[in-house]
Amino acid sequence: MISVVILGSGNLATHLTQAFLKADAINVTQVYSRNIKSINHLKKKTLITDNLKNLKNADVYIISITDDAIENFSKKLNLNDKLVVHTSGSIPLNSLKGNSFKGVFYPLQTFSKDKSISFKNIPICIESDSNNQLIILDKLAAAISNEVFIIDSKQREKLHLSAVFVNNFVNHLYEIGNSICMQNNVPFEILQPLIKETAKKIIELSPKEAQTGPAKRNDTEIIEKHLTLLTDNQKEIYKLLSASIINTHK
Amino acid sequence: MISVVILGSGNLATHLTQAFLKADAINVTQVYSRNIKSINHLKKKTLITDNLKNLKNADVYIISITDDAIENFSKKLNLNDKLVVHTSGSIPLNSLKGNSFKGVFYPLQTFSKDKSISFKNIPICIESDSNNQLIILDKLAAAISNEVFIIDSKQREKLHLSAVFVNNFVNHLYEIGNSICMQNNVPFEILQPLIKETAKKIIELSPKEAQTGPAKRNDTEIIEKHLTLLTDNQKEIYKLLSASIINTHK
Repeated sequence: MISVVILGSGNLATHLTQAFLKADAINVTQVYSRNIKSINHLKKKTLITDNLKNLKNADVYIISITDDAIENFSKKLNLNDKLVVHTSGSIPLNSLKGNSFKGVFYPLQTFSKDKSISFKNIPICIESDSNNQLIILDKLAAAISNEVFIIDSKQREKLHLSAVFVNNFVNHLYEIGNSICMQNNVPFEILQPLIKETAKKIIELSPKEAQTGPAKRNDTEIIEKHLTLLTDNQKEIYKLLSASIINTHK
Repeated sequence: MISVVILGSGNLATHLTQAFLKADAINVTQVYSRNIKSINHLKKKTLITDNLKNLKNADVYIISITDDAIENFSKKLNLNDKLVVHTSGSIPLNSLKGNSFKGVFYPLQTFSKDKSISFKNIPICIESDSNNQLIILDKLAAAISNEVFIIDSKQREKLHLSAVFVNNFVNHLYEIGNSICMQNNVPFEILQPLIKETAKKIIELSPKEAQTGPAKRNDTEIIEKHLTLLTDNQKEIYKLLSASIINTHK
């Protein structure tokens, strides 16, 4: 049994707490939030606190808060010889301060408070400054996911950067597609099968092989026509991405 | 039984021919290609020809060739009082010439020659200048798909434009994500569950609600750091899409 204390109550902290509470091999000893109201509903399942001086003993302390607050937060903890990890894709291991063992426990997925999610197929990227502690992190990750990867801080930074392109930016393109449809009384739902297939296609083909469309064909007539139909902001994005596709596939 | 002649042997023509051959309610009377070798394998299943003067009688003639060739190709057909349709998202109905009835039969999906696909859940957008012929097109579409939509040329143009954003451009962002991973010895496969979830998420949430990431949070520190890790081309795309997200969500 691995005991954990979760520090935070945001999107990821909430989903992690739920997953850990369900896992047989994990004991959620305590959840901390500076805003006790946000974790009040957990009272029946675990200890809760808003006071860092009251932290209980556990094998792993998981800081799951906004990126820029992690370093300062870690300085406030006084957990000598304990394992303290953060859950961020973009913050290096050595941003964690203090005399504890350090680690990273980064589930690479997009989390929304309103949408429940199973961790089983979510890759969890782990890292530690101690090999013994890395084994504990590996067990912790394996208790909720089938996909555990040992990834160092430099690789993780690039992975997170790549995730910005394939998740954040992709979703923004969905948003633009949605607004084009809405402005023209076309139900966006017609595009759902295309969106799903686009994501599925690159499991069998490389993104390079999967590329289609006017820019790939360098079909300037359609490209010019499309540009006349867009707002200024959409036009800029259309131009830049088309040029990049033409350049990559020439 | 609806009889069809398919004119073309590209990606979409090939997939359509396969789907029609399997459908009980459809008889594929003939397939035409100017390059007879590309349809030789269909010999055992239907008639083939490379001569437009030898076209057989059928209810529907489906032109499935490159967009810019459609108009001229339709002028060469002499199919008075027959229904002639094209399969393009971006070409208006009235680009079809001649004295035939005119229509559009546009399956909104991404097709690759090497990847087989079921039409059952692919939306098919139909249009015709004749209500009677539209009913035939509706039956033809319903014989292979559960998702049939009547969409006029103006709506279809916008739908196709939107598809460029959610398919072509999205795939290009996958390609950039892939190259960032490859340059840093991180397996791109780690990102597959994220990619799939990003596409699935917007079935439950609107793209606006689903948006996450540094630009959404206006986290300039991470954005600046990311920019130092990218090539010039990637940097331009990162900047423009981040600015667009910040602007949309402010």
